[in-house]
Amino acid sequence: MRIAIIGLGGIGASVGLAVQHEALGWGVVGYDIAPDALEGALQIGAIDHLAESVAACADADLIVIATPPLAMPDVFQALVPRLRPETVLTDVASVKSPVLRWAEAHLPYPSRFVGGHPIAGTEHHGVRAARADLFHGAPWVLTPTAQTDPDALLRVEAFVRTLRAAPLTVDPAQHDREFALLSFLPHAVAFSLAALHRENPTTVPPGGSWRSATRVAQSDPALWAQLMALNREPTRQWLQQLIQRLQTLADALEQGDANALQEWFSAPSAPSPREP
Amino acid sequence: MRIAIIGLGGIGASVGLAVQHEALGWGVVGYDIAPDALEGALQIGAIDHLAESVAACADADLIVIATPPLAMPDVFQALVPRLRPETVLTDVASVKSPVLRWAEAHLPYPSRFVGGHPIAGTEHHGVRAARADLFHGAPWVLTPTAQTDPDALLRVEAFVRTLRAAPLTVDPAQHDREFALLSFLPHAVAFSLAALHRENPTTVPPGGSWRSATRVAQSDPALWAQLMALNREPTRQWLQQLIQRLQTLADALEQGDANALQEWFSAPSAPSPREP
Repeated sequence: MRIAIIGLGGIGASVGLAVQHEALGWGVVGYDIAPDALEGALQIGAIDHLAESVAACADADLIVIATPPLAMPDVFQALVPRLRPETVLTDVASVKSPVLRWAEAHLPYPSRFVGGHPIAGTEHHGVRAARADLFHGAPWVLTPTAQTDPDALLRVEAFVRTLRAAPLTVDPAQHDREFALLSFLPHAVAFSLAALHRENPTTVPPGGSWRSATRVAQSDPALWAQLMALNREPTRQWLQQLIQRLQTLADALEQGDANALQEWFSAPSAPSPREP
Repeated sequence: MRIAIIGLGGIGASVGLAVQHEALGWGVVGYDIAPDALEGALQIGAIDHLAESVAACADADLIVIATPPLAMPDVFQALVPRLRPETVLTDVASVKSPVLRWAEAHLPYPSRFVGGHPIAGTEHHGVRAARADLFHGAPWVLTPTAQTDPDALLRVEAFVRTLRAAPLTVDPAQHDREFALLSFLPHAVAFSLAALHRENPTTVPPGGSWRSATRVAQSDPALWAQLMALNREPTRQWLQQLIQRLQTLADALEQGDANALQEWFSAPSAPSPREP
């Protein structure tokens, strides 16, 4: 079994470490556009061979694409000339529908691509954030479609279990809608609060609630700008619902309405849509 | 040295445990309106005497008021008939200006009251959340005013250090303004996100960013409704700034403006005030 990992950030390098940790004798080749990341991944033992290009990864049995999402169309295109029909491909991006569209548009055998998203990210990034046990017990969403080859799905599920994660299959659009709430909103809030604090430094040190709320503001801002752009409409809709709810609270505060405040905290009612 | 603790929730009972843990031989009397809390505090050793009323706590050397903030005017009034001029009083509420106004209005010797706020709360509450080491290394804000007796301040500072916390003095209005950002906004967001999820359950399990962002939604909703009502204007102003910032993001998503998104995440600029 030969695995190729394209993109050796925190997730890609953790996939490599986790494979090596299981000592299955698999060969792990890696590629990253940044020589530092590539060397770092080799040094920590996440990969055992350096590939010289994306194309040089094409003859693996399983290709894990762990680049930032906007790099994926180029990665697909670079793989195409040497890709074999039996090779299975998967990815780890936090957004799935655009990735599946790119796979459909660029790959010669799109049925062999299975979209994936390990629910195991942290605010740390880069090869130094890699951990062999990052996926232990973690859910790993897979988003097969009607076109997905069942054999490819079985292989990716087995691979994910090898990393000790728990695969679950979800419709790609549903994944993107739910993650806009579960992950994109918390990131939007964390970046907002951190920016407010940068502009309004406090004398009093923050406590635990602040640290929890802003932890993921340490995440890569360029990556999150990309992800949100790729999951625009669900994220925008959840943002409007959050804004509506916060505005209801602000209005209750302005009016000094103690009952409305108690109600807001105890059993918040569904906000009415704010669309024109 | 006799300490009285009025209100034996997570903070009040932790104060008692921390005093007992230092084994200074001080007597700790406690009172809570809920018999369960009172019995619980005695059982875990947070107090060594039960008081039968608030008034029965009045002859202590130091009175720590750790009730929900809206109970404090009644507590002050109940203490008044038996209060000695040398007794020092402090509290632990997350909002300070209203507490100081109540002390001024009700206490015969308001100069002996020193407002306090340990930055050590958690989402857990009640006597079961009490921990002897809760304040170890934690900042503990004190808010003396021009009227505060310097001797009372020194005594409360020494007491706080006995609990191994680090006292710092801050202007009460500044405390309330800064905590509206540092603690009230994260709580408003956590309660909002938790409510959105209750109304829109997901198939996909939440990851770490969601758990961090919603941790404090486990806090006591009634307490937070009170606190926000007591810190209305600063909280409202920060909420509007947060809403403005989230709306800027929603607008960039609606317009599909990749540059605006990159800018929002990388170096968010000051939002213009949204006031009419």
